[in-house]
Amino acid sequence: MRLVTYQSEAGPRAAVARGDDFIDLHHTDHTLPTDMKSLLALGDVAREKVLAAREHGDPIPAGSRILTPIINPQKVICVGLNYADHAKETGATVGDEPVIFNKFPSALIADHDEIHLPPESSQVDYEAELVVAIGTAGKHIPQGEAMSHVGGYCCGNDISARDWQKGKPGKQWLLGKTFDTFAPLGPVLYTPDEIADPNNLAIRCRLNGETMQESSTSQLIFKIDFLISYLSNVVMLQPGDLIFTGTPHGVGVARDPQVFLQPGDQVEVEIEGLGLLTNRVAIR
Amino acid sequence: MRLVTYQSEAGPRAAVARGDDFIDLHHTDHTLPTDMKSLLALGDVAREKVLAAREHGDPIPAGSRILTPIINPQKVICVGLNYADHAKETGATVGDEPVIFNKFPSALIADHDEIHLPPESSQVDYEAELVVAIGTAGKHIPQGEAMSHVGGYCCGNDISARDWQKGKPGKQWLLGKTFDTFAPLGPVLYTPDEIADPNNLAIRCRLNGETMQESSTSQLIFKIDFLISYLSNVVMLQPGDLIFTGTPHGVGVARDPQVFLQPGDQVEVEIEGLGLLTNRVAIR
Repeated sequence: MRLVTYQSEAGPRAAVARGDDFIDLHHTDHTLPTDMKSLLALGDVAREKVLAAREHGDPIPAGSRILTPIINPQKVICVGLNYADHAKETGATVGDEPVIFNKFPSALIADHDEIHLPPESSQVDYEAELVVAIGTAGKHIPQGEAMSHVGGYCCGNDISARDWQKGKPGKQWLLGKTFDTFAPLGPVLYTPDEIADPNNLAIRCRLNGETMQESSTSQLIFKIDFLISYLSNVVMLQPGDLIFTGTPHGVGVARDPQVFLQPGDQVEVEIEGLGLLTNRVAIR
Repeated sequence: MRLVTYQSEAGPRAAVARGDDFIDLHHTDHTLPTDMKSLLALGDVAREKVLAAREHGDPIPAGSRILTPIINPQKVICVGLNYADHAKETGATVGDEPVIFNKFPSALIADHDEIHLPPESSQVDYEAELVVAIGTAGKHIPQGEAMSHVGGYCCGNDISARDWQKGKPGKQWLLGKTFDTFAPLGPVLYTPDEIADPNNLAIRCRLNGETMQESSTSQLIFKIDFLISYLSNVVMLQPGDLIFTGTPHGVGVARDPQVFLQPGDQVEVEIEGLGLLTNRVAIR
């Protein structure tokens, strides 16, 4: 199933795609929840109802605004240096455990929302990433069971202020990664049955039409099942929690000459089977 | 006013203290919200109503469970190395900007909840901290207006797995700081009118009755107004967002011999005018 969150008159609502239409789930079947986090939490319990709603529901109004698929997740977890070629271009060595950092949920924006360049940074960069949304909650999840906790997949862009990420006291990446608008996500969340092999998807990033990153999720060093199991040993994963799985080579900071986002730029993240995430860059 | 969140039969509810009693705000005045984040967002608009409810409401049942004052804030922001004596004991130099990291909201626990020692760490440490809760939302808040955005103050304990904080690839502190149960908070949130000068409060931490940390918030390098202004240049601060302002000297990892938390330990954080936060340590 392809799921979105859209702005209804009553607030954000989960919807399912039927062709080019979207069907409001709660409006069609009042026993289904209004929001995506609650829907993901239901897992297979909701599946038959969602399929029935997709069959029989009326489409939402044309031109409805599509929001980020998950509103205010409890956690936006990110993996650093998870493609060997990207680790190499940054001069980092890959350890035997992943580099984990995060963004605040306040950084999330939707497809076609603007990425705001903060005046505090002159080195804002793009990072195309496969994002995993957690479905059912779990702690201490064995790697062999991890994939059953996936609620869906979508495109993400880990926008990064390199001067803040690397140049501040304490060398913590958080602030440089979490300026408001620095986490474009979506537009569509694809349930696992839609994706034959999440570890073998072409992934690319285009800047003003020019391909800047081009790789495959087959190059992920730490795979999705490992990441879910590893993270769940530290924190209880909750429905709607997001894992940005890392970016391949070709980021702007590692180019010669370096490339940073400028007002008016258009950034596209495209992942095989997961559609296209497009955002323009604006000054704020 | 002294505010708490307690577990009512209908779920978590905000309450105000009257002597040793607590008055459920929404139950007493249905125009008041049920949760603390919404209450803080109202700011002075709610103040007269809360004072009236405190006067006339019936106490909640004796023995009601007091929860962490704020449930699931959008952000739990933490400041590292914000007392000169603590920076010195860790061998760090203090920069001209604060070290900012964070915990996930899933780490929050209440007064008298257990801190769980994860089997993955052998170096779990305490850190007594003054915690600031944001009241009214704001972005790009001038330092001179920052204190008007404070919703309240309370005690916090920035529990830290030192081996994870310092010893993992990429040197990001997040995971070592955010194991579940690693953010004891509360029990009571004090509104700003209760605290004459938040920059001049005695702060201490006791481990099994022995004083391990003893200092004053007057020793904060980056003061509350600076921190709010600085952070609001990166992220929109929201009602209920928490800022752990840093810990003074005396942490376990910097002692000779080093001291780490053990099963059965009792840790107390006491801040002048903000009460006592007590947690026992258990193995999980």
